[in-house]
Amino acid sequence: MSKLTESAHAHRKDEHLAIALKQYQEKSDAGFDDIQIIHQSLPEIAVDNVDLSTRFAGLTLSTPFYIEAMTGGSVRTGDINAKLAEIAAATGLAMAVGSQSIALKEPAVASTFTIVRKVNPHGQIFANIGAGHSLDDAQRIVDMVAADALELHINSAQELIMPEGDRDLRWRDHITEIINGLSVPVIVKEVGFGMGQETINTLKQMGVQYINVSGRGGTNFARIENERRHHQELDYLSNWGQTTVQSLLEAQAVSDMQIAASGGVRTPLDVLKALILGANVVGVAGHFLHVLMTQDEDTLQTYIEDWQSDLRLLYALTGSRTTADLRTAKIVL
Amino acid sequence: MSKLTESAHAHRKDEHLAIALKQYQEKSDAGFDDIQIIHQSLPEIAVDNVDLSTRFAGLTLSTPFYIEAMTGGSVRTGDINAKLAEIAAATGLAMAVGSQSIALKEPAVASTFTIVRKVNPHGQIFANIGAGHSLDDAQRIVDMVAADALELHINSAQELIMPEGDRDLRWRDHITEIINGLSVPVIVKEVGFGMGQETINTLKQMGVQYINVSGRGGTNFARIENERRHHQELDYLSNWGQTTVQSLLEAQAVSDMQIAASGGVRTPLDVLKALILGANVVGVAGHFLHVLMTQDEDTLQTYIEDWQSDLRLLYALTGSRTTADLRTAKIVL
Amino acid sequence: MSKLTESAHAHRKDEHLAIALKQYQEKSDAGFDDIQIIHQSLPEIAVDNVDLSTRFAGLTLSTPFYIEAMTGGSVRTGDINAKLAEIAAATGLAMAVGSQSIALKEPAVASTFTIVRKVNPHGQIFANIGAGHSLDDAQRIVDMVAADALELHINSAQELIMPEGDRDLRWRDHITEIINGLSVPVIVKEVGFGMGQETINTLKQMGVQYINVSGRGGTNFARIENERRHHQELDYLSNWGQTTVQSLLEAQAVSDMQIAASGGVRTPLDVLKALILGANVVGVAGHFLHVLMTQDEDTLQTYIEDWQSDLRLLYALTGSRTTADLRTAKIVL
Amino acid sequence: MSKLTESAHAHRKDEHLAIALKQYQEKSDAGFDDIQIIHQSLPEIAVDNVDLSTRFAGLTLSTPFYIEAMTGGSVRTGDINAKLAEIAAATGLAMAVGSQSIALKEPAVASTFTIVRKVNPHGQIFANIGAGHSLDDAQRIVDMVAADALELHINSAQELIMPEGDRDLRWRDHITEIINGLSVPVIVKEVGFGMGQETINTLKQMGVQYINVSGRGGTNFARIENERRHHQELDYLSNWGQTTVQSLLEAQAVSDMQIAASGGVRTPLDVLKALILGANVVGVAGHFLHVLMTQDEDTLQTYIEDWQSDLRLLYALTGSRTTADLRTAKIVL
Ligand SMILES: Cc1cc2nc3c(=O)[nH]c(=O)nc-3n(C[C@H](O)[C@H](O)[C@H](O)COP(=O)(O)O)c2cc1C
Ligand SMILES: Cc1cc2nc3c(=O)[nH]c(=O)nc-3n(C[C@H](O)[C@H](O)[C@H](O)COP(=O)(O)O)c2cc1C
Ligand SMILES: Cc1cc2nc3c(=O)[nH]c(=O)nc-3n(C[C@H](O)[C@H](O)[C@H](O)COP(=O)(O)O)c2cc1C
Ligand SMILES: Cc1cc2nc3c(=O)[nH]c(=O)nc-3n(C[C@H](O)[C@H](O)[C@H](O)COP(=O)(O)O)c2cc1C
Repeated sequence: MSKLTESAHAHRKDEHLAIALKQYQEKSDAGFDDIQIIHQSLPEIAVDNVDLSTRFAGLTLSTPFYIEAMTGGSVRTGDINAKLAEIAAATGLAMAVGSQSIALKEPAVASTFTIVRKVNPHGQIFANIGAGHSLDDAQRIVDMVAADALELHINSAQELIMPEGDRDLRWRDHITEIINGLSVPVIVKEVGFGMGQETINTLKQMGVQYINVSGRGGTNFARIENERRHHQELDYLSNWGQTTVQSLLEAQAVSDMQIAASGGVRTPLDVLKALILGANVVGVAGHFLHVLMTQDEDTLQTYIEDWQSDLRLLYALTGSRTTADLRTAKIVL
Repeated sequence: MSKLTESAHAHRKDEHLAIALKQYQEKSDAGFDDIQIIHQSLPEIAVDNVDLSTRFAGLTLSTPFYIEAMTGGSVRTGDINAKLAEIAAATGLAMAVGSQSIALKEPAVASTFTIVRKVNPHGQIFANIGAGHSLDDAQRIVDMVAADALELHINSAQELIMPEGDRDLRWRDHITEIINGLSVPVIVKEVGFGMGQETINTLKQMGVQYINVSGRGGTNFARIENERRHHQELDYLSNWGQTTVQSLLEAQAVSDMQIAASGGVRTPLDVLKALILGANVVGVAGHFLHVLMTQDEDTLQTYIEDWQSDLRLLYALTGSRTTADLRTAKIVL
Repeated sequence: MSKLTESAHAHRKDEHLAIALKQYQEKSDAGFDDIQIIHQSLPEIAVDNVDLSTRFAGLTLSTPFYIEAMTGGSVRTGDINAKLAEIAAATGLAMAVGSQSIALKEPAVASTFTIVRKVNPHGQIFANIGAGHSLDDAQRIVDMVAADALELHINSAQELIMPEGDRDLRWRDHITEIINGLSVPVIVKEVGFGMGQETINTLKQMGVQYINVSGRGGTNFARIENERRHHQELDYLSNWGQTTVQSLLEAQAVSDMQIAASGGVRTPLDVLKALILGANVVGVAGHFLHVLMTQDEDTLQTYIEDWQSDLRLLYALTGSRTTADLRTAKIVL
Repeated sequence: MSKLTESAHAHRKDEHLAIALKQYQEKSDAGFDDIQIIHQSLPEIAVDNVDLSTRFAGLTLSTPFYIEAMTGGSVRTGDINAKLAEIAAATGLAMAVGSQSIALKEPAVASTFTIVRKVNPHGQIFANIGAGHSLDDAQRIVDMVAADALELHINSAQELIMPEGDRDLRWRDHITEIINGLSVPVIVKEVGFGMGQETINTLKQMGVQYINVSGRGGTNFARIENERRHHQELDYLSNWGQTTVQSLLEAQAVSDMQIAASGGVRTPLDVLKALILGANVVGVAGHFLHVLMTQDEDTLQTYIEDWQSDLRLLYALTGSRTTADLRTAKIVL
C-alpha cells in the first residue's frame, strides 16, 4: 500500500500527527507546576534500594510511565509505531497503539498496528479503540496485537469539534458490553479533556475499574480539530476540559479505581507528582513524539533511560522505596 | 428627511454608534473567561435530539440569544435597524430596537423604528425606552412597532456621565405605573453596568418579573459618554459597575425572576455559560454590530447561523437536551 | 530674605518639594483601584438635592476634601503657600500648611506661613508641626496662622530614613500635653506610612479624637528621604507602611474616632471610596501640587471645581444625598 | 600546594564558587517580599537604646546575622576564607567555614580552614561538615578551627543532583552519635532547600536543639549542581524545596528549637523579617560573597557595618529595644 492510495481516514491520522507536532508547546499547562513537593531533608534511604515497578490493570509494569496511544493506520504512522515499539522493547516500557478502528474498516492497514507486536513480542501492549464499538470489534482489535489490555477511549469533545466527527455520543451500553465480555482488562481513557468526579463515578457504577483521566495541558485535540475546520471558528474551546492535575484531584474523591494519568507530562518530576497525586501509572504521548520527530530514535531511547534513572533519584529524594510509598509524600498546591 | 436636517438628539444616536464601534475590543471583560464548565466525558446524547428553544417574558424563543437594543432615530441607524430586522427574520431571532424616546418628540423619525416590523412582520420584537417616561409614552412606542414586549432601560450611570444627560433619577413611580398598565410584558434592563442583589430585590418588590442584568465587560457607556465630554475627565469611571457574570451570580440570590443577560457576549460558549449561570435568554449588541459594520449583512447572518449550530454541539457536549437542562451543568469559578 | 541666605532647614523644604515632584507617579498604589463600588441601577435621587458638606474636628467643611500639609519655610515654598491659599479661598476648601517648626527656630520665615491667613482671612486653615514639640511651641504655631485646628504629624519612618532625622521617637507625653492644653482641636497625622489598629488604639487611649491615617500609595517619604542619602541604601524601605485603604479598614475596627484620609488620592472616585470606607474628610497633597507645578494656578482652581461638581454626580450615582449617607453604600474588595 | 596540583574535590570547591557567583540574582525569591511589617506610628523609643545582640547555640552574638558556610579546600577559596575572617574580626560577626570533609582526606588543605582562626583568634567560628560523617571526624574538624559550634549540613537534594554525589542518604545514626558526643553545640543545617515540619520534628526527636532551616530563594544548589551535569537535564528541579520564609513558618509549629535562618537574605529588612518570623539569628552566604567578589574586602566590611547601623534604625522603627522584643512585632503575609 503506497501513500498515494491511502484513504481519507488514514489521511486524518497523518493530519493529527502533523498538527500535534506543529502545535507542540514547550511548557505544559497540565497543572504540575502549581504543585510543590515538600522537601524532606532526611530521606534516610539509599538509591540502590529503590524499586520503580507499579501495578495497573492486572499487570506489573517495571517502569511507572509508558508510551501513550498515538499512531497507526497510515504508512507514516505505521513507521512511527515500529520505532516506538523498538524503544519500548529496549527500555521495558509498556506501550499503547493509536485507535485501531480504521483497521476494522480497512484490513490492509492492520499491519501498521501488528508491527508493534512483531517488533516487541514479549512487551506489554495496549490496544486502542473508541467507545462506540461493539464487543466483537473490541475483541478483534485486541487479538490483532495480542494486547495485554484495551484502552477504550471516550473522546466526546474531540468528536464534536472534529468536522467529520460522530454526532451520536450514546456509548454507555457499548462500554458495559465490552468490559463484561472482553478477554483482557479494559482501561476507559479520555484523550486530553480530563475527567471530573461525575464522569468517574458514572464509570465506576458501570463496572469500570481502570481509567486514564488524560487531562488538558499537553496535546490539545480541541485545537487540533479546530485547525482542521474551514474557519477555525471553535477556537473558543481551546481551554475546554480539566487539567491532568485537576482530574487527579477529582479522582481522589472516588475510591477503589485504578488510575492512569496522561496529558502534558514533560519531565520525570511531572511523573512523580502524578504518582503522588494518586496515579498508578503515567502515560506520555505528545512529548515523546516530539522528541522522536525532532531528533531520532536513539535520542528518545536514551531520553527514556534518563527518565528511568532520574526517577530513582526522585524516589530517593522523597524517601520512597517503592511506587506505593510515594502516596505518603507530602505536597502543597 | 435628510441627514443634514437631523436633530441634536438624532446626532447623538450616530455618535453612540460610531464611538461604540471605535471602542470595540476583541476581548470581553464580562467574566466569562473566569468560568470553566466541567467536562463530562460521557454526555450520552445525540446532537439531533437537542432543542435550543427557551421561554422568557411570556414568549417562546426558538433561539436562546437575540439581537439586543441599539439603533434607530437617525437615517443611518434606521438603515441598520432594517438590516438587523432582515437577519432576525431569516434566522428566527428575537430583536430589540434602540430607545424610541426620540420618536415621541420627533415623529418624523418613527419610520426608523417601524421599518423593523415592516421587514419582519411575524418576528418577535422588543420596544425600548428609558425608565423616566409615562405609561402613555410607553404604550405609544410599543404600538409603534407592534412589540411583543417592552425593554424599559434604567441607565443612571449613563445619564450622569452623558454631558447632556438627565440629572433627576427618580424613576420608580414611572416603572410601577408602566408594569401595571402596559399591554405587553415589561423587561427592566440595564445598559452595561450590571445589577446587584439590592437592585434586583428592589425591582422584584416593585412587581417587576423580567429583567436584563446587562453587565460590564462589553459595550461601555461610561467610556462612550466620557469620550463625548470636552475634557474626558470622567475616565476613572471606565470600570464602573458589575460584570455580566457578577450580575448573574447576584441574580441567583433572588428567586422567581426571569433573567436576560447581556454585556460582552462574544461566543456561543459565552451564551452557554450565561445560560448555565441562570439566564433564560442572552442578548448580544456590540459584537453583532461590529460584525455587521466591519463586514456585511450576509456575513452576520451566516455568523448567527453558525452560533445556532455551534450551540447544538455545546448543548450536547454538556449532555443537555434542552435549555432548561443546562441549569444542571457543573461549573467552577 | 533672599534664597541665597536660606538655612539648611529651609533648603530641605525645597528638596522635599523637588523630589516629591520628580518622583510623582501617575498611578496611585493606595489601594483604591482594588475597591469596587456596587452599582445601584435605581438611585432614586436628583443631583440638585446633593449636599457635599462634612464635619471633622469640630468644623463644618463645605467640601469633603482639602489641600493637605506641604509647604512653607523657604522663599519658594512660601510662594506656593500663597497660591494654594488663593485657590482654597476661591473654592471654599480647607487647607493645611506644611510643618511650621522651622518658623520657631527661624522667625524670618514665619511670613511664608502667615501669608496663607493673609490671603484667605475667613477660610479654614490647619497649622502643622511634628509630635516632638511642647504645648508652648504648638500654641505658637497655631496662633501664627490663626489656625482652626492643628495637624500634629507623627513621622517616625521619615525621621529614621532622613539622614539628619530625629533618632529619639519618644513623643507620647508631648502629644498628651498638647491635646489637653491647646486652644483648637488636634488632628494626629501620619505622613504617608498609614496607621494600623495598634496605633489608632494607642492614640485613642491617649485621648486623641481626630486622626489622619495618611497612608502609603501616593507621596512616598521613604523614597524621598532615601534619595537624599549618599548611597540610597535604604531603598528596600520603599514599600514600608500600610496603604490608605488598608489604614481605613484598620480604622473601622476602632470606634468613636473621626478620620481624615490622605495618601495617593488622585480622583473624585478615590475621595468617594475613602468616604465610603469611613473617612469623614479626605486630604490631597502630592497630586494637587503636581497639577499646580506642571500647569498653573488657574488650572488647579478649575480642576478642584471640577472635582466638586463630579462629586455631586458620584453622590447621586450611589443614591447618597449627604456625606453621611455614603456610609451605607455597598462595596466589594 | 599550587593550584595545578589540586584534587578533583578541591576543583569542585572552585566550581561551586564560580557557578554560585555566575548564577547570583539581584532579586531573592526567599519570600521576604511577600511579608509586610505593620508600621507603628508611635514606636516610643530612642535609637541609642537599641541592643542588637542575640543568643544561639549557647553563644551570645553581638550582631543578629553572620557569615554563612561557603569556602575552603582550595587555594582560591582559602584566600576568600582569610578575607572573610578579617571582616568577621573587624565587625564582630560570627562566621562559618565551608565543608571541611576535604581536609580529612587531604590534610594539605587544612590550612585553607585554619587560616580563619589564625586571622580571627577571638571571634566566633562555626566548623562545617556533612551529616554522613562519624563523631570522630566531626571532632577533628571542630578542633581544626577551634570552633565554637559545629554546622552539620544535611544536603540530600544537592547530593542527588551532584553528578558525583552521595547515593546513600542514611544519616540519622551519624547525627545522633555526633550530637551526643561532640565537645561543642551542633547546628543541623540545610543548604538552601529549606525544612518542613516533618524534618524539624524528626530532628527534635533525635535530640537536635539548634537548626538552620536554610531555605530556597538565594543560592540554589539544584541549579549549581545541574550546571555541572553534562546535559543539565535536571533543571526541572530548580524550584525544589521550601523558601526560607516557608521554612520559618513551618518551624513555628515546632516548639523549643533554636532557629537560624539563611537562604536569599539580601537586606537588613530581610534579616529583620526573619527575626520577626522566629529566627534567633540569620546567616548570609551568597550575597556577601557577591559583594566581596564583585567589589572588594573594604567594601564588604563597610557594607556589613551599614547593615549593623541600619538594623538599629529598623529595630527602633518597630519599637523593639532588643532582638527578643522583635517577636512581638506584627506582620501580614
Ligand atoms: C498524534 C496523536 C494521536 C493520538 N491518537 C489517539 C488515539 O488514537 N487514541 C487515544 O486514545 N488517544 C490518542 N491520542 C491522545 C493521547 O493518547 C493522550 O491522551 C493525549 O495526547 C494527552 O497526552 P499528551 O499531552 O502526553 O500528548 C493521540 C495523541 C496524539 C499526540
Ligand atoms: C450603539 C449602541 C446603542 C445602544 N442603545 C441602547 C438603547 O437605546 N437602549 C438600551 O436599552 N440599550 C442600548 N444599548 C445597550 C445594549 O442594549 C446593551 O445593554 C449593552 O450594549 C451591553 O451589551 P453588549 O456588550 O453586547 O453591547 C446600546 C448599545 C450600543 C452598542
Ligand atoms: C512636598 C511635600 C511636603 C510635605 N510636608 C509635610 C509636612 O510638613 N507635614 C505633614 O504633616 N505632612 C507633609 N507632607 C505629607 C502630606 O501631608 C501627606 O500626608 C502625604 O503626602 C500623603 O498624601 P499625598 O499622597 O496626597 O501626597 C508633605 C507632602 C509633600 C508632597
Ligand atoms: C559557594 C558556596 C559554597 C557553599 N558551601 C557550603 C558548605 O560547604 N557547607 C554548607 O553547609 N553550606 C554551604 N553553602 C550553603 C550556604 O551556607 C547557605 O546555606 C546557602 O547558600 C543559602 O544561603 P544564601 O542564599 O545566603 O547563599 C555554600 C554556599 C555557597 C554560595
